[in-house]
Amino acid sequence: MHFLAICGSLRAHSFNRLLLRCAEEVVLHQGWSIDWCDLGALPLYSEDLEATALPESVQRYKAQFKRADALLIATPEYNHSISAALKNAIEWATRKGNNLDGKAVAVMGTSGGFAGTARAQAHLNQILVHVGAYPLPRPVIQLPFAKQHFNTEGRLINEQTRSLIEKQVIALGVWANRLNPVSVL
Amino acid sequence: MHFLAICGSLRAHSFNRLLLRCAEEVVLHQGWSIDWCDLGALPLYSEDLEATALPESVQRYKAQFKRADALLIATPEYNHSISAALKNAIEWATRKGNNLDGKAVAVMGTSGGFAGTARAQAHLNQILVHVGAYPLPRPVIQLPFAKQHFNTEGRLINEQTRSLIEKQVIALGVWANRLNPVSVL
Repeated sequence: MHFLAICGSLRAHSFNRLLLRCAEEVVLHQGWSIDWCDLGALPLYSEDLEATALPESVQRYKAQFKRADALLIATPEYNHSISAALKNAIEWATRKGNNLDGKAVAVMGTSGGFAGTARAQAHLNQILVHVGAYPLPRPVIQLPFAKQHFNTEGRLINEQTRSLIEKQVIALGVWANRLNPVSVL
Repeated sequence: MHFLAICGSLRAHSFNRLLLRCAEEVVLHQGWSIDWCDLGALPLYSEDLEATALPESVQRYKAQFKRADALLIATPEYNHSISAALKNAIEWATRKGNNLDGKAVAVMGTSGGFAGTARAQAHLNQILVHVGAYPLPRPVIQLPFAKQHFNTEGRLINEQTRSLIEKQVIALGVWANRLNPVSVL
């Protein structure tokens, strides 16, 4: 079982990236593997960029998608929706071959405010279902007041959320395997 | 009355840009002025880019917003939502001083399919109201099957939509003036 981690925030010390680090621990503990996307390397989508060969960063990124059995997305919430970086990544994943079609996806997110990315995740789920992905409905991971829940080393100290992430990663592996059986599971 | 035109598609021959060209004719015919944003020049938003002086392209863009009495946004629909380019522009407009707060905005859009950007506009209106802008509710401009409605010179030949754009631009001028009276109107 091979996962792809996608962090919608480009900030180096992003709390959402720290959530994915926690998920990575679970993935590795299960004996599965994980790769990370660099959304900041992708150019802003324009159909004009499809006229010739796709930019190298886009080709690399689409190859990462093809290799993945399941996606782990951590989304921030910017202005009540997903980030431009994440929307841009979805655009590229769905052009010149839809790499999201039929993919198992789990979504998690944390924000500084009280909503914990609930509104961004609502938009994201609409988009994911439209592109043919299969979002895992439960557990929901929407962590409010982000900075209270990490220690100075960037480790998630909120045990309830750690436990939800563990449940989510394992459920995603089972879900992806049910959609597309993987011989190693 | 000074307008700012914002095209959510970066494509050189974007049909949405052609809608804005039609709006521009109305603006100039009324004796008003208009400026255009270059969304492709903006870097993908990251909080890390705010640590020092904002990138020059962002500063230029935010200055354009400050000068504008009203915004004309043409949105494509990518994967049932707004484009990454447009979301990115909204992020930058609302950071380090919210340039959308209190702004009169009109939205138009055209797409290749039957929905004519209806779903993208629904997301966009949620975002615009959240950031404190005042979207003009009527007329709604959502033009399906884009390429049927322009001639080979890129001129909008759909007379009903031309008339709606004229109504929208004039209504936007009146709306902006009601929000923030402009002496020249």
